Amino acid sequence: MDWMVLKGESKRFFELLKGDVAFLFAIGNTKTAEIPGITVAGANPDLIKFTPPADVELLFYGECKVIPFPPATPDGKPTPAIITYTALRLTGVPFFVVDSGLMVKPKTPYVSINAPIGENIAEKDAMKLEDVEEAFRNAVEFGEQISKFADILMIGESIPAGTTTALAILRALGIKTMVSSSMPSNPIEIKEKVVAKALERVKGNEEPLELVAKVGDPVMVGVCGIAVGSRKPVILAGGTQMVAMANLIKRIDERADVAIATTIYVANDSEALKHAPCPVIIADPGLGNSTKPGLKAYAEGFVKEGVGAGGATLLAYAKGFGKKEFLKNVEKSYETAIETKL
Amino acid sequence: MDWMVLKGESKRFFELLKGDVAFLFAIGNTKTAEIPGITVAGANPDLIKFTPPADVELLFYGECKVIPFPPATPDGKPTPAIITYTALRLTGVPFFVVDSGLMVKPKTPYVSINAPIGENIAEKDAMKLEDVEEAFRNAVEFGEQISKFADILMIGESIPAGTTTALAILRALGIKTMVSSSMPSNPIEIKEKVVAKALERVKGNEEPLELVAKVGDPVMVGVCGIAVGSRKPVILAGGTQMVAMANLIKRIDERADVAIATTIYVANDSEALKHAPCPVIIADPGLGNSTKPGLKAYAEGFVKEGVGAGGATLLAYAKGFGKKEFLKNVEKSYETAIETKL
Repeated sequence: MDWMVLKGESKRFFELLKGDVAFLFAIGNTKTAEIPGITVAGANPDLIKFTPPADVELLFYGECKVIPFPPATPDGKPTPAIITYTALRLTGVPFFVVDSGLMVKPKTPYVSINAPIGENIAEKDAMKLEDVEEAFRNAVEFGEQISKFADILMIGESIPAGTTTALAILRALGIKTMVSSSMPSNPIEIKEKVVAKALERVKGNEEPLELVAKVGDPVMVGVCGIAVGSRKPVILAGGTQMVAMANLIKRIDERADVAIATTIYVANDSEALKHAPCPVIIADPGLGNSTKPGLKAYAEGFVKEGVGAGGATLLAYAKGFGKKEFLKNVEKSYETAIETKL
Repeated sequence: MDWMVLKGESKRFFELLKGDVAFLFAIGNTKTAEIPGITVAGANPDLIKFTPPADVELLFYGECKVIPFPPATPDGKPTPAIITYTALRLTGVPFFVVDSGLMVKPKTPYVSINAPIGENIAEKDAMKLEDVEEAFRNAVEFGEQISKFADILMIGESIPAGTTTALAILRALGIKTMVSSSMPSNPIEIKEKVVAKALERVKGNEEPLELVAKVGDPVMVGVCGIAVGSRKPVILAGGTQMVAMANLIKRIDERADVAIATTIYVANDSEALKHAPCPVIIADPGLGNSTKPGLKAYAEGFVKEGVGAGGATLLAYAKGFGKKEFLKNVEKSYETAIETKL
């Protein structure tokens, strides 16, 4: 099957994707990613900070500029941006990048919400509350404006180590679960250790934005702000990170009309999606049938999701592209954007 | 009358304003504004650099944040942003700020195109050509994306001393005319002196972006890039500055579908509009009938235009607001945003 509803009423969201969609990408950095072994969102530790800007450059140009090759894991599994790039190219849906705390700016246009870079949550608070509040307000304003045009917003993310900060938020909210990982062998011990340290600073009576400031990351500020500001339904395109954000959003504004869309690879990997306070839609890009080893690896538990890949797949299906046709186009993107750079 | 056609076929643009409009504001700074006596876009010279961010804060919030009062001339004539704020509030049209070379960032969301601040064109080249080319490319990309939603784009500007850099561009393009001014006594001698110095660096065989890099300003980069990237018709909302930009745009892409919309106060002040290579639409906000001295002053030759005020007036009329009703609402904005801060 192309897509399925894991949880809740999702047909309405799928139908809205046939209309005017705006795809937003909130991207940023947390120094939590500098903890050895916590993420593979970069070919080596020095490159991790370039992953978010390189991801969105790929969306615009089909190639990266801040680094001369696309983001990949150390063993060469390519960024999920390749899936999203394909969906954007096929559908022509307008998209916008939001700087949600970047260390390196992309060579693309981007929206600034004046978000800070996230600190290592094992060591200290992620951000100053006043900085979070200002960036959140800006994101709300932008979300309101951009939603005026669209029938529905889709929001993706790119932030290395984002599943760890998501785990900290979920735990701080009292949700007992484990997040997904870009590795088949989820480095759970490292994540738990970091989160335990972070949670030492949590009292338990914090408001949502206070929690984000203490143990979250700046991408949460952008995503939550845009979703709260939107006058239209919002699909959070991502995996377990979006479960954390959906919980934050619903606590900030219980009327927020959100759903989560992610890949089947995340759904196979984590039961965290069950803790979503909203509908969850699973899209299957069918990469298990790919002739490209770098793509087939997704079905074997590598990478799985990111840069809105699951939502982008759903978008392509909603716009009328079939599963085989979409895969063929993802493979074509892989040939031009990845294989020529290997 | 509410609006009239000064030149060309303008009805089509007016009709499009009844549909989905995106209003963009390209704002920035040129150090040319630091030349004594060249601009009154600020209560005193130290405040001039705050005028563009304060203008767009007014659009978002009805009040300014980077300075505790709205931009005004030294003798208290308020920024034309008050007119644009009123039109945006009445029509609910989505709007976006583009940082086209700001010295001070606004406390609002804004789109970055990585534009440099403009140098004083009397002294040296305004910008490096490579910086202009990068910012232009980003503006083209943003223009393309944002235009996908809309039936028509409207672009306003805020850049103190922008008429002087516009004069330099017009002269460099071989167009013999004089630009308008925010003062009834246009400081023509100062402008001519600055432009003469700037033109010493012009050989005459420059491409449009080379000219902008030599004697223009960064707002031209943003406006021209967005207009060239747009897939839909574009209204350049401004006075004689937009005449310079329309000429640049047409030289970059002769198929660009642009028109200029400005206030009757600019039309009364300058024959430069006759050098527009496109339709020009004149809107009359009727401020001569205002009971507020700060607004009535516009009809006496002060301020006249800026921050898209003429286009915003046209937009309000296209959306069905009558001239008297609009003026009443501008006066209401004046009472809350200006009079309470005096």
